[in-house]
Amino acid sequence: MIAVDWGSSSLRGYLLDEHGAILDQRADARGILGCDGNFAAVLADLVDGWPGTILMSGMIGSRNGWIEQPYLPCPATLDDVAAALHPHRDAALPGRALWFVPGVAVAASDAPPDVMRGEETQLFGLDLHAGSAQVCLPGTHSKWATLRAGALTGFATAMTGELFALLRTHSLLGRLMDDGQALDAAAFARGVQRSGEPGGLLHHLFGVRALGLFDRLSPSAAPSYLSGLLVGHEIAALADPAQRVHLVGSAGLTERYAVALAQLGFTSAQAPESLAARGLYRIAKARGMHG
Amino acid sequence: MIAVDWGSSSLRGYLLDEHGAILDQRADARGILGCDGNFAAVLADLVDGWPGTILMSGMIGSRNGWIEQPYLPCPATLDDVAAALHPHRDAALPGRALWFVPGVAVAASDAPPDVMRGEETQLFGLDLHAGSAQVCLPGTHSKWATLRAGALTGFATAMTGELFALLRTHSLLGRLMDDGQALDAAAFARGVQRSGEPGGLLHHLFGVRALGLFDRLSPSAAPSYLSGLLVGHEIAALADPAQRVHLVGSAGLTERYAVALAQLGFTSAQAPESLAARGLYRIAKARGMHG
Repeated sequence: MIAVDWGSSSLRGYLLDEHGAILDQRADARGILGCDGNFAAVLADLVDGWPGTILMSGMIGSRNGWIEQPYLPCPATLDDVAAALHPHRDAALPGRALWFVPGVAVAASDAPPDVMRGEETQLFGLDLHAGSAQVCLPGTHSKWATLRAGALTGFATAMTGELFALLRTHSLLGRLMDDGQALDAAAFARGVQRSGEPGGLLHHLFGVRALGLFDRLSPSAAPSYLSGLLVGHEIAALADPAQRVHLVGSAGLTERYAVALAQLGFTSAQAPESLAARGLYRIAKARGMHG
Repeated sequence: MIAVDWGSSSLRGYLLDEHGAILDQRADARGILGCDGNFAAVLADLVDGWPGTILMSGMIGSRNGWIEQPYLPCPATLDDVAAALHPHRDAALPGRALWFVPGVAVAASDAPPDVMRGEETQLFGLDLHAGSAQVCLPGTHSKWATLRAGALTGFATAMTGELFALLRTHSLLGRLMDDGQALDAAAFARGVQRSGEPGGLLHHLFGVRALGLFDRLSPSAAPSYLSGLLVGHEIAALADPAQRVHLVGSAGLTERYAVALAQLGFTSAQAPESLAARGLYRIAKARGMHG
């Protein structure tokens, strides 16, 4: 089978054998926002020469993607997700069955809603079948999820990465920052430390400006300090101190979160990469596509 | 004397009698960012035909203003501010003494810094001489100040208004909002209510998007909901529940804060307008410019 992880700004394909092992993989810069709607042609390019059924997760199943998939309600098990799949066909991919994994929503009418699309597949790719586990997928919209016996039982999204980018690009704080992307570990740690003090995030954000005004935060250190502030506030509000945090994502970002978690007294573990491929394989298997 | 309140985007002048009563007042749209640096000419226009010494407060004394005034350290009394004034002269205003009120800073090297410029004058315009009082000046950068026996003993700034504008203009949330400026009182109250629930501001912000996705928050109600969220978080982090909150500012904004404070169990009182003129008069008097 072919596993495809297709987000807003990235596309990754994996050719899997019958045990889920990765035989081949390809990446393409054409996320759904870079396809001009020509999803079938982009996919045909990606899987050229690869045999098998195609299973896709991520924003490709959103309103702005190829074929919108309704959200499954949370809690959701692997079997719930597998049962919700429907095969599609497309003339540009003759003889191929196309399957889209739905997103998952917290959508009870008496509680604040939340949504994920793509992360559910990564979560089902984790080998955390027993007891309960807490998983963080940091990013533009960080997800904090709870798994119980392998089922997704709850989650919350934090707008951390988007707010960081907004503040850096468009706020008064951005004028105090240079363009460097390198992490200043000491400044990041200062931001995390500050996040735990009284005053709240809105006050701490103004402090970035005040520190700059008194030459107590350099333009090269300010982005890392701001990142530490935001990540620290995210962790304090959403992490359960009674549990280890399983971190899922790119090495750079999860390493940053691991440092902040340790500084705040939490323990964490880095999950393996390629979780999307693993999750798509497990969903396919639960659907009976194999065996 | 002439009292001038000159901020980034507004300019107000008051002709005062020897008891501080307002004899005449004028407003001009040319805040310091709209003067192209021609401060003397703009001021000469404003005070044309008015006699007397000119005392100015606000961003006109900042790095981007006319003549930069160093910050006074907090705590600061009315007499401290009066003693820090120095007269200036300008050829465009022959025979006039020009005085600039300095800003105030929390600047101890072992604590996070904070600054205000202009608000100190409004605070000294309040008739709160006995005991201690808590004052909130809501805005782009909201100030929460503590007065003791009329002295400014501490303050904290929250980036509430700037963040609201950023999110509305540049974030994914803004795409879910229409352009209306009218307050939707019910949506504002929902936002305030939500601010008090677990999850933190970064999670609550993402909730604005999720509510919109499920048609549970309309494009016309979303800005008010977002405002309620941010104001609620600001109040919870910075207000002292043991004290009444004195609100200083425009009627529309202070009314909004009064509603949020009441909803969260705080009591508040609206301060009179024209506090800048009153504060400048009191500073002048403390300096001995009168009597």
